[in-house]
Amino acid sequence: MSASGTEHVVTRSIEIVMEPGGRRIRTARGALVVDAIRQAGVDMETPCDGRGRCYRCAIEASGALSPLSEIEEEARRLGLMGAGQRLACQVRSVGPTKIRVPEFALTGIAQIMADGTQIGHYSFEPNVRRVLLRLVPPSVSDDVADRERLERALADAGIRARCTLPILANLGQKLRGLQFHCAALLVGEEIIDIEAPDAAPVCGIAFDIGTTTVVAYLLDLLTGHELAVVSALNPQSRFGSDVISRITFAAEQSEGLRVLARTVRTLMNDLIKKACTKAKVGAQRIYEVSVVGNAAMQHLLLAIDPRSLALAPYVPTTTGSLNLRAASLGLNVHPNGGLFILPGLGGFVGADTMGVILATRFHVGQGAALAIDIGTNTEIVGREPDSGRLIALSTPAGPAFEGGRITSGCRGMIGAIQRVRLIDGKVGVETIGNANPVGICGSGLIDALAVMRQLGLLAASGRVLQGAEFLLVKEDRQQRKLGVTQKDVRELQLAKAAIATGIKMVLNEIGIAEKDLREILLAGAFGNFIDRANAQSIGLLPGIAIEKVRQVGNAAGQGAKLALVSKAARVEAEKVAREVRVLNLAQQAKFQDVFLESMAFN
Amino acid sequence: MSASGTEHVVTRSIEIVMEPGGRRIRTARGALVVDAIRQAGVDMETPCDGRGRCYRCAIEASGALSPLSEIEEEARRLGLMGAGQRLACQVRSVGPTKIRVPEFALTGIAQIMADGTQIGHYSFEPNVRRVLLRLVPPSVSDDVADRERLERALADAGIRARCTLPILANLGQKLRGLQFHCAALLVGEEIIDIEAPDAAPVCGIAFDIGTTTVVAYLLDLLTGHELAVVSALNPQSRFGSDVISRITFAAEQSEGLRVLARTVRTLMNDLIKKACTKAKVGAQRIYEVSVVGNAAMQHLLLAIDPRSLALAPYVPTTTGSLNLRAASLGLNVHPNGGLFILPGLGGFVGADTMGVILATRFHVGQGAALAIDIGTNTEIVGREPDSGRLIALSTPAGPAFEGGRITSGCRGMIGAIQRVRLIDGKVGVETIGNANPVGICGSGLIDALAVMRQLGLLAASGRVLQGAEFLLVKEDRQQRKLGVTQKDVRELQLAKAAIATGIKMVLNEIGIAEKDLREILLAGAFGNFIDRANAQSIGLLPGIAIEKVRQVGNAAGQGAKLALVSKAARVEAEKVAREVRVLNLAQQAKFQDVFLESMAFN
Repeated sequence: MSASGTEHVVTRSIEIVMEPGGRRIRTARGALVVDAIRQAGVDMETPCDGRGRCYRCAIEASGALSPLSEIEEEARRLGLMGAGQRLACQVRSVGPTKIRVPEFALTGIAQIMADGTQIGHYSFEPNVRRVLLRLVPPSVSDDVADRERLERALADAGIRARCTLPILANLGQKLRGLQFHCAALLVGEEIIDIEAPDAAPVCGIAFDIGTTTVVAYLLDLLTGHELAVVSALNPQSRFGSDVISRITFAAEQSEGLRVLARTVRTLMNDLIKKACTKAKVGAQRIYEVSVVGNAAMQHLLLAIDPRSLALAPYVPTTTGSLNLRAASLGLNVHPNGGLFILPGLGGFVGADTMGVILATRFHVGQGAALAIDIGTNTEIVGREPDSGRLIALSTPAGPAFEGGRITSGCRGMIGAIQRVRLIDGKVGVETIGNANPVGICGSGLIDALAVMRQLGLLAASGRVLQGAEFLLVKEDRQQRKLGVTQKDVRELQLAKAAIATGIKMVLNEIGIAEKDLREILLAGAFGNFIDRANAQSIGLLPGIAIEKVRQVGNAAGQGAKLALVSKAARVEAEKVAREVRVLNLAQQAKFQDVFLESMAFN
Repeated sequence: MSASGTEHVVTRSIEIVMEPGGRRIRTARGALVVDAIRQAGVDMETPCDGRGRCYRCAIEASGALSPLSEIEEEARRLGLMGAGQRLACQVRSVGPTKIRVPEFALTGIAQIMADGTQIGHYSFEPNVRRVLLRLVPPSVSDDVADRERLERALADAGIRARCTLPILANLGQKLRGLQFHCAALLVGEEIIDIEAPDAAPVCGIAFDIGTTTVVAYLLDLLTGHELAVVSALNPQSRFGSDVISRITFAAEQSEGLRVLARTVRTLMNDLIKKACTKAKVGAQRIYEVSVVGNAAMQHLLLAIDPRSLALAPYVPTTTGSLNLRAASLGLNVHPNGGLFILPGLGGFVGADTMGVILATRFHVGQGAALAIDIGTNTEIVGREPDSGRLIALSTPAGPAFEGGRITSGCRGMIGAIQRVRLIDGKVGVETIGNANPVGICGSGLIDALAVMRQLGLLAASGRVLQGAEFLLVKEDRQQRKLGVTQKDVRELQLAKAAIATGIKMVLNEIGIAEKDLREILLAGAFGNFIDRANAQSIGLLPGIAIEKVRQVGNAAGQGAKLALVSKAARVEAEKVAREVRVLNLAQQAKFQDVFLESMAFN
């Protein structure tokens, strides 16, 4: 390790711009550049411990820098360091500086980029920070109190932060135990812990709490690495599979709300434990939790009475973001850890949709476009071609595309029929995990409808033309037939019509025709797996060129991750929350007409 | 009641200056003046419910006002309203306005002015606010969430505030139950409760936690009225009568710190209960608690390890202010109530001294002066004549002036000899409550020394010249003699010398002679009761003209009250904390010499 941390005697801070990416680091004037880079959360290897012997930390640097050190002059003489290069362990920033760090050191945010999302566009600047400090120990001539000494040292490094009560309890002994050479852990502007300078890692965990599935992502907040992903079904399902039945349970059962809150909080603790075991990290090293979820999931998690969500005019108690303590929900992370709830857009367009917008940067894109997150409630966001303004709505598609109320329907589980194709005129199926078929999941159902239409077995009206059922599997292991019945087609028709109606309403509102759409983004697990062409052929999606329909994966979860690693993304979220207009589908005059029109298969 | 609260559709805020006092009220443009006055916490009587029939709310008003209403025109015609007057229930402010409210309505801060303190100079602007809101209920065309609706309405009235998690739990039902016509309770920028618009009162409680005595003041934060004062001995005394022995107990006994914290918190809850019973107020109506105390009392209250306070270089863990939740210390007030700990100046010059400075406005006064709070630790603050800068130190006087280690010594209790006088050459005593004498308290001891000197019974060196004891009471009810022995004189000499040394050190530091002092302020119960001339005659206080020595009462407690009723006072406190220079007595080169010199009685 090189000499690191900021001496509290330095009283001015300066800015270093780090390329590629343009990240801005605030640090004490005169700080070693390698320390500034590390303080920004980039782990730079210095095998020689900063003694200027390995030349591994050569970077491009310009601006207000200290003069070449003897070591650097020698390195340049020996040709080990190019013109314009400096050794990060030798050079100090004395004013505005620009540096370019070699790619290998740039672990940051690029590591959690995934799928079609554009996370790399946000600056890596977690709300959780770890700041190395070498404090001057108190003496008779400098008897400033410990807390004020700490806060002053941070202020000198350009960081505004204050101690929380829990860390004051034994701050004095901790600082003395570490000889006043320590790392301060910050969540936002709160100092939540003091630890040894080399304690690691510093983690955060992002939750995507879906009505059906909960996913957790454990991230290293110093490097941006994703350490583990774990998921589980939302155990609230046993109190109701959809949002409305859970709200009813909360409203009508004694302690119903508490039970639902406790259920999901317990699951979150299970997932925290699992993720930590997987990554071999102590849960105490998690300093912040972020959460996306629809409004109902958010209310139930926070134990907020959800009744108003289920009664006209369907107004949630809160849609805005919340900065809380993880302990206030009983989450087993660092005892003073933070909890950030992403803002939503309205009662039916929640923080999950916000996650999709953030992760796809839909709000800064150009041209007419749709972002669709298909689910029991399907959220559709449209972008106006000229103004770039966003309009969102939610349409109640029901559970058909998740296999609900479908005779042979099932979720996207092992053995689910996820593909149905015509191969040489014969119907072939493909199951998840190539396992024995157990049912048909949403993408399989869409394929089945498309194949039925291709084979002339299904009228545009939705009538099944030959026989009562389109058989896919004659007999599964439970000796059941797997197929699509007339009743199933009617359920799917209703779901499809709800989604298609929502799309048409949004297109109508932004004033463009289907053909003028520059792109459609499909978010969520379901959207990620469907056959886009088949979805178009049954009228679920607008019939634009297939390459314009992009599947962007679990963008909602990406949004939760973004909130952990980028404060800028949080600021964007607040901006989006203010600017997106949410339509109330039921308020739309033509709703009934469009819905009925949308029932037909073309 | 008149129509009150702010409609959330009003989007601009304006300022009303209210005389006498010059208080500034921010309110929504177009708001009724009576509502603005109430919002500012002044309870104005309107017996006719704002229907313009009683003319009781006539005020002087000028500036940007709505035109005369029909009712006002009639009032003027009938001579019920003078020129320049308006009816507060009729007139609306549409821009900057100046009003003068009749004295009877001005209950505010003047009510808690006391003793020699100058609380009236601060603006009445409690950190706890109660804002009346008439929200537009949500509808299909305005489906903003409840929390955002509430925060928006406050923002429209120029108030930035956010909901806390606990109130979200049933915010929806509360607002609906009140038909969206409610009062929002704010602590700082946090909305901590929603209640009926006419719920009352809104209270705060201020604590002065002394090493020996704890005093609590219950205040009505809408009017500034003091509703109750209660006090009790600090029960931590049973773990040690002075600060050092309590710190030792905390450090050496298992759970010692917890026991001490629990002890004082329990007492605070007892005092809260007593004060509420006395004032017939529910403890849930207390929305904020403020606390002054010396650094050790503060550490023990907050369960912060106090060991560093007792070991060189005697550095506390924290001296700055803290904004906490009352529930974090288990205080039984409103469950979301706030807790404000006033900032101190250093390890031995705590928030109690800050209270003295604030309450006496010592920091903005003119000319050379001292403020002295005599106690086991005696704090002395000096003001430089030209710069106005403050210098503070603490001197360990010991418990002699509180009756400790004195043969017949006692605290200022019923029966304590508080005055000793020569009447016609004979020694006469006066006890507290004119009760049978039980001992001699500090003011009596000072008098006794002065009388002994007058009678020629005491040499300047401190030697008792006739007999072993100066007898005051031959036999009390327990058949004991009460008097002052040679040993007692030595104890008192040490205490006096410590204080006199501190005074000399401060005077030396601010570079003036005793005679140039413009005033000396004596704070604290003891300072309030001593005979100033006798204190001067034994060399405890500088011998300046007696009228320049002012006794200002429990100024520390006044400081705690101030923090409750005036945010401006808190800002001042932070400023004072940054600016006062604290001297370390032991660091002063001449300390030993001056101390030895100060032993003699002139």
